[in-house]
Amino acid sequence: MFFASDNSGPVAPQVLEALARANDGYAPGYGSDTLSEQVVERLRALFEAPEAAVYLVPTGTAANVLSLACLCPPYATVFCSPVAHIQEDECNAPEFYTGGAKLTLVGDGDRMRPEALRAAIANEETRGVHGPLRGPVSITQVAERGNVYSLDALRALTDVAREFGLPVHLDGARFSNAAVKLGVTPAEMSWKIGVDICVFGGTKNGLMGVEAVLIFDPAKAAEFELRRKRGALLFSKHRYLAAQMAAYLDGDLWHDLASRANARGDQLVQGLKGMGVAVRTEAHANVVFFEMPRRVHRAVQEAGAVYHLWDDLEGPGDSPALARLVCDWSLSPKAVSDFLDLVGKAL
Amino acid sequence: MFFASDNSGPVAPQVLEALARANDGYAPGYGSDTLSEQVVERLRALFEAPEAAVYLVPTGTAANVLSLACLCPPYATVFCSPVAHIQEDECNAPEFYTGGAKLTLVGDGDRMRPEALRAAIANEETRGVHGPLRGPVSITQVAERGNVYSLDALRALTDVAREFGLPVHLDGARFSNAAVKLGVTPAEMSWKIGVDICVFGGTKNGLMGVEAVLIFDPAKAAEFELRRKRGALLFSKHRYLAAQMAAYLDGDLWHDLASRANARGDQLVQGLKGMGVAVRTEAHANVVFFEMPRRVHRAVQEAGAVYHLWDDLEGPGDSPALARLVCDWSLSPKAVSDFLDLVGKAL
Amino acid sequence: MFFASDNSGPVAPQVLEALARANDGYAPGYGSDTLSEQVVERLRALFEAPEAAVYLVPTGTAANVLSLACLCPPYATVFCSPVAHIQEDECNAPEFYTGGAKLTLVGDGDRMRPEALRAAIANEETRGVHGPLRGPVSITQVAERGNVYSLDALRALTDVAREFGLPVHLDGARFSNAAVKLGVTPAEMSWKIGVDICVFGGTKNGLMGVEAVLIFDPAKAAEFELRRKRGALLFSKHRYLAAQMAAYLDGDLWHDLASRANARGDQLVQGLKGMGVAVRTEAHANVVFFEMPRRVHRAVQEAGAVYHLWDDLEGPGDSPALARLVCDWSLSPKAVSDFLDLVGKAL
Amino acid sequence: MFFASDNSGPVAPQVLEALARANDGYAPGYGSDTLSEQVVERLRALFEAPEAAVYLVPTGTAANVLSLACLCPPYATVFCSPVAHIQEDECNAPEFYTGGAKLTLVGDGDRMRPEALRAAIANEETRGVHGPLRGPVSITQVAERGNVYSLDALRALTDVAREFGLPVHLDGARFSNAAVKLGVTPAEMSWKIGVDICVFGGTKNGLMGVEAVLIFDPAKAAEFELRRKRGALLFSKHRYLAAQMAAYLDGDLWHDLASRANARGDQLVQGLKGMGVAVRTEAHANVVFFEMPRRVHRAVQEAGAVYHLWDDLEGPGDSPALARLVCDWSLSPKAVSDFLDLVGKAL
Repeated sequence: MFFASDNSGPVAPQVLEALARANDGYAPGYGSDTLSEQVVERLRALFEAPEAAVYLVPTGTAANVLSLACLCPPYATVFCSPVAHIQEDECNAPEFYTGGAKLTLVGDGDRMRPEALRAAIANEETRGVHGPLRGPVSITQVAERGNVYSLDALRALTDVAREFGLPVHLDGARFSNAAVKLGVTPAEMSWKIGVDICVFGGTKNGLMGVEAVLIFDPAKAAEFELRRKRGALLFSKHRYLAAQMAAYLDGDLWHDLASRANARGDQLVQGLKGMGVAVRTEAHANVVFFEMPRRVHRAVQEAGAVYHLWDDLEGPGDSPALARLVCDWSLSPKAVSDFLDLVGKAL
Repeated sequence: MFFASDNSGPVAPQVLEALARANDGYAPGYGSDTLSEQVVERLRALFEAPEAAVYLVPTGTAANVLSLACLCPPYATVFCSPVAHIQEDECNAPEFYTGGAKLTLVGDGDRMRPEALRAAIANEETRGVHGPLRGPVSITQVAERGNVYSLDALRALTDVAREFGLPVHLDGARFSNAAVKLGVTPAEMSWKIGVDICVFGGTKNGLMGVEAVLIFDPAKAAEFELRRKRGALLFSKHRYLAAQMAAYLDGDLWHDLASRANARGDQLVQGLKGMGVAVRTEAHANVVFFEMPRRVHRAVQEAGAVYHLWDDLEGPGDSPALARLVCDWSLSPKAVSDFLDLVGKAL
Repeated sequence: MFFASDNSGPVAPQVLEALARANDGYAPGYGSDTLSEQVVERLRALFEAPEAAVYLVPTGTAANVLSLACLCPPYATVFCSPVAHIQEDECNAPEFYTGGAKLTLVGDGDRMRPEALRAAIANEETRGVHGPLRGPVSITQVAERGNVYSLDALRALTDVAREFGLPVHLDGARFSNAAVKLGVTPAEMSWKIGVDICVFGGTKNGLMGVEAVLIFDPAKAAEFELRRKRGALLFSKHRYLAAQMAAYLDGDLWHDLASRANARGDQLVQGLKGMGVAVRTEAHANVVFFEMPRRVHRAVQEAGAVYHLWDDLEGPGDSPALARLVCDWSLSPKAVSDFLDLVGKAL
Repeated sequence: MFFASDNSGPVAPQVLEALARANDGYAPGYGSDTLSEQVVERLRALFEAPEAAVYLVPTGTAANVLSLACLCPPYATVFCSPVAHIQEDECNAPEFYTGGAKLTLVGDGDRMRPEALRAAIANEETRGVHGPLRGPVSITQVAERGNVYSLDALRALTDVAREFGLPVHLDGARFSNAAVKLGVTPAEMSWKIGVDICVFGGTKNGLMGVEAVLIFDPAKAAEFELRRKRGALLFSKHRYLAAQMAAYLDGDLWHDLASRANARGDQLVQGLKGMGVAVRTEAHANVVFFEMPRRVHRAVQEAGAVYHLWDDLEGPGDSPALARLVCDWSLSPKAVSDFLDLVGKAL
């Protein structure tokens, strides 16, 4: 009953096998090996973007902040949700990598709304050189409170960005879970709706530590490479990043692993709703926020379930507790049903 | 006959096995798993430094620049060799991570000399606020042209740093090769001779991508952790970094792999000297620079040997070519003897 | 009828006279001249802080961001009002000078409230290394919408900072106007209520371009000096900054000029209230926000009054317009009464 | 007998008069006043560059580092002399403002030579993403050891920059002194020989603290303005910068003041050479380096002459002392002849 994070589960066995296969003799470093070059081509094919610049980096934060650094000069501001990973969970890495840009927070939920985004953008670049320039719009799909934007909702945001001539970054740490949920292709959820730089996450979906960044305007490629190197993020033994990504692409493993995780999310939501529990994630994939009486939380945790409470770690008495449960690819249906049983008993 | 770099060879099989063993069920992220905690303790034991703060990072550049950022404020300067990796091969990452510090280049070889270091330090912090403060001394062991500092030579440098109250960073990307060469313990080559932050490299010696940083003054620990995170260098699935390092420590694999690589370096140097070739590395471990007539170089490369020429990629006619050969742990004695045969024939 | 800004008026004649007096023969540069040294002592005396480190800088932004850079490491966050000058009007200079720190916005008005500040601080440093550390609290006195904090209100904020062990920066671009309004001494409005670094503004109150920074903990002095130099903000001909500040201190010119400006603010507020106009600044000094029908605004501007509308530059029809009027030291009572007459006629 | 620096003398009286004239009533801030706009046009006319973007900043360091920040991305390197002001006297401000670029030092004198520059440039951008990109060439005219480049010498350097497609920055803190020395126009010493951004210094030549930056490619204008603001270097009361520059342009005051300073330099050099003193500045304007026996130095200083020794502040016995004497516009012929008399007696 481990629901703490989708980066706490094991790596898919196919990934370890791919690492072993890649471990054969010598290979040039820094991405110029055959495997790395093949992976670039395969990612271009998957995204139907033959001209895209494609890079592998080891962490989601790296993928986000290198992307933003290429889109946002230091005297501009990034538009994002107040609970975006780049705002809450990257310890000022966006400010660091952009050389001191600002983040302008839009609205108060995990999904930005087009009206709020438009208002936030309109409110910047109104004070001459006294305020920052308008910079990129950063969207997280799956969003931080577990919600999946519909394609229409995404397009509504990218349309606003386009009104103002601003580029769009998609933080796709859970890109696969969202694509599976929506039943769309990677291209449909990225450049076809106006995304300029897309992060195709692997680490939260069964890889050891690899994210792909797809830059649909290849003019940014050289800058990304230089920023990756000076960020200390270029791997010399790059083939082992490539091997993970190759395994991820083989037989659409990315899709298969995300489907499994999402199925556990569905199982969890249906079970909770069936018991009348207030599920707070409206359009879930594999991350579910819900409220339960605090005594239920205590009983369930004592019985061994692992997950995080949100916002109010030390709430009083029996006030409602907001819990976040994350289902990873390796989670068993039994783990979910065991958890649901515990909740049911405690209610 | 692959001598291009010690980061181009395969990973030691024990490392892959350790990754597979670590791939079992759930583990907390970001270094709070059992395996990660054990590795910290084991590194403290290896370095006889029970109080040291110990961190794993994925690249040698990351290890260097995070260390320097903790030792050097943005209005100071780092003292290093003009061919140091931090100067030549990190695309301004030290300047980036320190927030804009400077590098002051000492002397003209790969090994700094104490007199030159003293002169360089004395020449800074002489202009009030107009010039930078004196910052850390950064030493590379094995140095960039393949030379290993003796313990006395290292201590002579750290003594100069101490005269001025400056901290010392040791870039130990090839720390193991140097320790094997000198027949000393990790403690003897680090804090016992005045090193404040030591990089214990793994990537060039059989790991997939892990370096340990040992900070002997634990007061710097919190800053290092925050800088690692905002550098996008903190791995969520940290157990897979730890597993590699655990394998490296098991049965002193680090020592065994470095011994193998150094033995090939010895074989190479002895063979070259036996043929009257001018070996330019005076105190080698596994990296050897030597000069050969350019026609020899051409013949040897055509026959399939892989390595880099240095400085003069396109030299004229039959001028001497300076070659760098790097022996990794997996290099076979036969590969070296084949290479020597080729040189012998071509001479 | 010029109310656009208190940095648009002329320099007090005493300042020009002081510049002329200072322009006599040679003087050492960079603040080591006699006049500069005297001014430091006189500012220490005025603030009853004989140990304080004291520096002159040419702009208010410089005073703020150098102060914040000394108080906030790059992996921390500054707490401030969402309309603070450092957030809205410095084009990311705080992010630049701190090396990439964040600004956390507190509440929704120009004056922060202690409960909102406590909540904002409590909400940071809760996510380990994933979020930034808690950094300094930055308070603006006079606040951006023209309100003057009472001493009690200031102390309530600094008390919250102290609860968490955080330092306090006071943006005192209009420090003199506030001190006059409250009838308190500089010491009473700074270190005696828990301010760690105080900006004593001159530029908006009759100087040509000088702000003093008082650092009550002199341990920060060296860092401030180095950061000022590398910010390109150290004047070689420093005596001309010192001369301005000397004139400002002579006969308490700072107090006299601020009293004049505040008197015009009083005149304006009383006149507007007498006509039933909705004054939005509750505790004004020399800056007054008020609402008027848009047709009144148009009539008044056409008649030659100069000031800025706020937030809604292009409001529709006859919706209320929010106007900011700033009274500088040189403003005549007649200019104010002329303005009031215009409003009265147009209403 | 004050020869310590040309920023230690008084401001030209015309400058104070201009400040007084400008101090009349209200004026819009931040450079949008009439006087500021006129000065821009007049500087364009002086430089025969009607399209140039022109900005005023308060310090020479500001002028240099804002220029470099517009020309050099953070992953590139600036080429300059090892004794350039940007390397030795700006406390890492270039590294700060560029976001962490590097400075590559060319040759070992104050004037760079084209061959050394070509070699230095050729040596960068040879290591893929591992080393920095080639960035701008920065030339100082008058150079730091007092030498004036001839137009041919400047053009030889800008030609090398052009070979590699690199932009050129001219640090003209003593631009006027050089132009007077060479008898050339500002245009002839800037864009006509390939300078892209030129600093036209005022502070060392009789102004209180103003430098003009001329950007001959106006596409860089917006970036410069934003960087100036976020560097805390934009003056609200900009008319007082403009008034200084206006006085500087009236009747070619810049030329007149520089002529006076240069005449004192000539007087000094001729006097020294007449006594057989070893003058080390080959092509002087108003800065002269020369060697004298240390006992002479001691005697002259005791008699009241003020200047700096270079490099060896505390030399032994009667070893030669290298002195730097700087003549400012206000220096009297008698002060120079008094100094020469002292040297003559002491020899």
